[in-house]
Amino acid sequence: MRTGIATVCLSGTLKEKMQACAIAGFDGIEIFEQDLVTSSLSPEDVRKMAADLGLTLDLYQPFRDFDSVPDDLLAANLRRAEAKFRLMSRLGMDTILVCSNVGTATIDDDSLRAEQLSRLADLAGDHGVKVAYEALAWGKYVNDYEHAHRLVGTVGHPNLGTCLDSFHILSRDWDTAPIEAFDADKIFFVQVADAPKLSMDVLSWSRHYRVFPGEGQFELAKFMGHVVRAGYAGPVSLEVFNDVFRQSDVERTAVDAMRSLIWLEEQSAKWLDANAPAGAAANGAVVSGPAAPARRRYPMELATLPQVAEPAGFNFAEVKAADTAGLEKLLGQLGFEFNGRHRTKDVQLWTMGHARVIINEQDPDAPYAAGGASAAASGSVGSAPAIAALGFDVDSPVIAAARARQLKAPAVPRKSQANEEVFQGFAAPDSTEIFLCQGNPDGTAAWIGEFGEIGEFAEHSDLREHPGSGKGLAVPAPGARNAVIDHVNLAQPWQHFDEAVLFYTSALALEPQPFAEVPSPSGLVRSQVMLTADRAVRLVLNLAPVIQQDGADAGTAHRKTYQEHIAFAVDDLVATARAARDRGLDFLQIPANYYEDLDARFDLDPAFLATLRELNLLYDRDADGEFLHFYTATVGSVFFEMVERRGGYDGYGAPNAPVRHAVQYDHLHRLKRIT
Amino acid sequence: MRTGIATVCLSGTLKEKMQACAIAGFDGIEIFEQDLVTSSLSPEDVRKMAADLGLTLDLYQPFRDFDSVPDDLLAANLRRAEAKFRLMSRLGMDTILVCSNVGTATIDDDSLRAEQLSRLADLAGDHGVKVAYEALAWGKYVNDYEHAHRLVGTVGHPNLGTCLDSFHILSRDWDTAPIEAFDADKIFFVQVADAPKLSMDVLSWSRHYRVFPGEGQFELAKFMGHVVRAGYAGPVSLEVFNDVFRQSDVERTAVDAMRSLIWLEEQSAKWLDANAPAGAAANGAVVSGPAAPARRRYPMELATLPQVAEPAGFNFAEVKAADTAGLEKLLGQLGFEFNGRHRTKDVQLWTMGHARVIINEQDPDAPYAAGGASAAASGSVGSAPAIAALGFDVDSPVIAAARARQLKAPAVPRKSQANEEVFQGFAAPDSTEIFLCQGNPDGTAAWIGEFGEIGEFAEHSDLREHPGSGKGLAVPAPGARNAVIDHVNLAQPWQHFDEAVLFYTSALALEPQPFAEVPSPSGLVRSQVMLTADRAVRLVLNLAPVIQQDGADAGTAHRKTYQEHIAFAVDDLVATARAARDRGLDFLQIPANYYEDLDARFDLDPAFLATLRELNLLYDRDADGEFLHFYTATVGSVFFEMVERRGGYDGYGAPNAPVRHAVQYDHLHRLKRIT
Repeated sequence: MRTGIATVCLSGTLKEKMQACAIAGFDGIEIFEQDLVTSSLSPEDVRKMAADLGLTLDLYQPFRDFDSVPDDLLAANLRRAEAKFRLMSRLGMDTILVCSNVGTATIDDDSLRAEQLSRLADLAGDHGVKVAYEALAWGKYVNDYEHAHRLVGTVGHPNLGTCLDSFHILSRDWDTAPIEAFDADKIFFVQVADAPKLSMDVLSWSRHYRVFPGEGQFELAKFMGHVVRAGYAGPVSLEVFNDVFRQSDVERTAVDAMRSLIWLEEQSAKWLDANAPAGAAANGAVVSGPAAPARRRYPMELATLPQVAEPAGFNFAEVKAADTAGLEKLLGQLGFEFNGRHRTKDVQLWTMGHARVIINEQDPDAPYAAGGASAAASGSVGSAPAIAALGFDVDSPVIAAARARQLKAPAVPRKSQANEEVFQGFAAPDSTEIFLCQGNPDGTAAWIGEFGEIGEFAEHSDLREHPGSGKGLAVPAPGARNAVIDHVNLAQPWQHFDEAVLFYTSALALEPQPFAEVPSPSGLVRSQVMLTADRAVRLVLNLAPVIQQDGADAGTAHRKTYQEHIAFAVDDLVATARAARDRGLDFLQIPANYYEDLDARFDLDPAFLATLRELNLLYDRDADGEFLHFYTATVGSVFFEMVERRGGYDGYGAPNAPVRHAVQYDHLHRLKRIT
Repeated sequence: MRTGIATVCLSGTLKEKMQACAIAGFDGIEIFEQDLVTSSLSPEDVRKMAADLGLTLDLYQPFRDFDSVPDDLLAANLRRAEAKFRLMSRLGMDTILVCSNVGTATIDDDSLRAEQLSRLADLAGDHGVKVAYEALAWGKYVNDYEHAHRLVGTVGHPNLGTCLDSFHILSRDWDTAPIEAFDADKIFFVQVADAPKLSMDVLSWSRHYRVFPGEGQFELAKFMGHVVRAGYAGPVSLEVFNDVFRQSDVERTAVDAMRSLIWLEEQSAKWLDANAPAGAAANGAVVSGPAAPARRRYPMELATLPQVAEPAGFNFAEVKAADTAGLEKLLGQLGFEFNGRHRTKDVQLWTMGHARVIINEQDPDAPYAAGGASAAASGSVGSAPAIAALGFDVDSPVIAAARARQLKAPAVPRKSQANEEVFQGFAAPDSTEIFLCQGNPDGTAAWIGEFGEIGEFAEHSDLREHPGSGKGLAVPAPGARNAVIDHVNLAQPWQHFDEAVLFYTSALALEPQPFAEVPSPSGLVRSQVMLTADRAVRLVLNLAPVIQQDGADAGTAHRKTYQEHIAFAVDDLVATARAARDRGLDFLQIPANYYEDLDARFDLDPAFLATLRELNLLYDRDADGEFLHFYTATVGSVFFEMVERRGGYDGYGAPNAPVRHAVQYDHLHRLKRIT
């Protein structure tokens, strides 16, 4: 598949955009007219730079408001077009996008339109230019791609063809199947954009909210499947108007964009495999038997990626800190066992059932550098405790890593010595490190054998003072033996939220769920759950509001105002909470008002309500089941949650999230007022 | 008018919200349930705190999903209601908002609904509670305020009345006139919110985009006029769900909110005056003759503000800098005359025709403190040249200042000595200082007599090297004799954009125009023109995107990424530009590509196009006229523009704005790359 991108997708100058596209690996670009008009580069400069960068110049766009006009305006429009055709010749470009008229169309007559497009095609032919005509979703008379294509057919001119744009087609819910019947030679260009499904006027939706494929809700693999079956083999080019992308780092956005096309290419191939015509292959040979039909060959070649199944679960979560005492204390009080220190690295292992937490002991005098360049680039949050990494159990770490690499995930090297498990690691868009691990079917992990030497640790640590800590000292509550990591909540910087959704979708095979908005005292938190079909992995991406103040460090603000957490599921939350209370755990204190409201809503058994209140437990219930949970106090930017799922409850206690936010906010601000 | 506000409008904890409301001067508040549930304050604490702060607790809200349900659910809902009634008794509150059912309504039957509401009213009566029933715009069966009020009438219970919410009524375009026929005793509560007119689903619109009155496009004065005529005299309370307000400084948002009610009160009184029933006053007495009817008296008393006409023009613009050389050079080259220094203050005066620019010479060693607290609070941009203040000609500075004070504009004191004009000053939301001046009808200003002493200045300045500078030295181009300040473009911090619109609307009588969006290499710039009817004052508020990077100072970022400017109108731009070029002016260099595109669009006379190109002039044309303009290079965060308006052209060359942004961006980033 030939990949392309319109310069309007990116921030910066034309030069910066072109360089970023080349670095990200695009084959070609669309020149958005405004980017050229405002550039100090001459058309010849642009042509040379593109050649030097190895980029083809695939489409000049947009030419607006041409058709359906009276004669005098047509003459002016042809004159305007000719100036652009001459410019294209200097650029060495041969295809121009002409949109259906929005602003100046006054005559609704297909035969007049065909005649006008025919004159444009004649003129284009004189200049060696091909006109790709596109129906805008809000075109005054032409807003349906089939209508536009009928006009192309009526004109029947070699220099006039169709441009198909997924946004203009899917935003109107047009059926995409008819594309297959199009003559491939008449499809001059294909543009792709995804979008969240929003109920708003289609122009605003288009101009502000488009996203890259895989970041929205359109059925793009199906759209592309029909395009491929039609026999189209030209560029597949991104045209994404997005307020955030337009103000984000250009090189990073270009990589995000390229990842979306690599993913779309794979998804399109899969759609074609899954929707191969039954009974007959392309050449008419009858396919029989239970085997899947051999892949039909199309003019467009679709590359595939190494295939991975969704992860089987969390392998571990890693928290880093210069001063680890607060983390050790919390984990010990929750009932985690200390499993010793790593034989070669400055990390500790804590476990409860199959939930494994690594504490990464950073050198308090050195800046955080575990993630190397990625941490430095995205802004370290200093040496206070923070979530640093997540490990996922996958069938084959090597295959999964190869896939992630092809999806342009930035690698994170980790030193390992002989006989130690080698972790394949990548930096997620928020700089959390993601490790791909070989999990055991029984939920254990081989690498825990690399940990030991408790004695040495206990000597220099104040761990002995923590009841329940230290190997063999902890007596996990009966309900905690099967503990697992239930979910992890991460804060995302606003400019990388969509990128993160695509990252976890494409590299880790997690499925994005509809997002929720949770009120907090500092504003609404946008919360996006990503999960596996069996719910073994639940990752929650949170876009937190930032109360901006003078001197605020924008790069790390998302972690300062939104605390991240790791939630562990146990069989008996009440027993776990009681044991933790007996060990002196600092619970997040839930206001009395909450329990009164809970009782008003759910009419709870008084004894049960008293238990909830006594132990600072939160509660939710829906048609599928019940949810009990509690939170610890925060150390640094991280805290822990313990949960119990009863019945088929599949949520996260969302109605209780505002309570958590309010109490945490109050703590944070009380601390600020004191210090 | 009794003023109120729902706690959901504001950021922070319940305690912080209540304190901010008291400081801003509200009479009462609505307790949004979630704010109480998540609070560590007991109901008794809240009651006491409100009493201590002098706030009444006017409404407990919301109670959702009550009506139109089957019997078993009704029983649960009544139980739930009773818990809330008991809670209200502890809070000392007597009115609760009950919304029409959205989530659980299954039976569309008005008689059933009336029966269910009647049972609720009975229960409320037992607890001394009044139920204010409101039709949500997206209620499943009840979404029209007249429908809700008919149900109230059918039930006919003393404890059941109507809640009128302007958003739910005006978002659906319901006619508000029928409110007048409502029995005032049956209107239990009135909530007001404004909103921009958006084409999107009404629920998202309501939850994210409401703004305070005067910041949107709803006809709120008319709505309030009908409410007042109905005889309602209870609280008028803001209920504004807004993503930005929820994450902004609570005290500042509360003041913005209070300002909106003060303004709405005045606008409502004006609407009532302008729409007084012809012929008959309230008491039935016939009003005759050409005089305006005497103001009718209503149960709700509406306070008025000191009245001001729109400003007659800009009196001056003030730019500040520690090193003023760059500013002096630019102004001199543009053809401004140096009119000397102030006799007691460290400021210079430069004029061209009636355009006056003051250069405020800051002490380079001292932090900027001209604006006192306001500059410190909103973040000084350091000592680099920046727009500091604007003076406006008003009929009576004293009356205008009194009005601004009543609208809670923060005063900015300026020292003045005997025989010097006293400027009445206020800080705008972006910390620009606004001065109200006594202009002369001939466009001159009396205070210029306070300037002189050129000799002394010339001695210590390198001004003599600037051709065209110095009193009497400059020979203004023939076309510049009638120069005036045409418009001023200011950058606004994102969290104070709506506040700024209301500030200039209410305190300065400027009219907001529909906003535009301009693409720049760093993202879309939202641009809001505020102007007087005669166009003597044009102020452009710009909300610039911020490419956030580590360490960026969020408080001043809006000025760092969006440069501000002052535009001067002259009669002959070409002559002005030629003279400036001869004086060596550093023009903003316009790319050659721009002129080719201009020619393609407008088919210009070749000689005229050559002139534009030669002088770096930009051009625009519409049905009303033509616009020529050029920009200077930037010093600090400020640059200048010269414009010529031909015919009735009323815009700002918006199609050219992307060119300016791109060239300025390129300069800024080139500088960054060098340094």
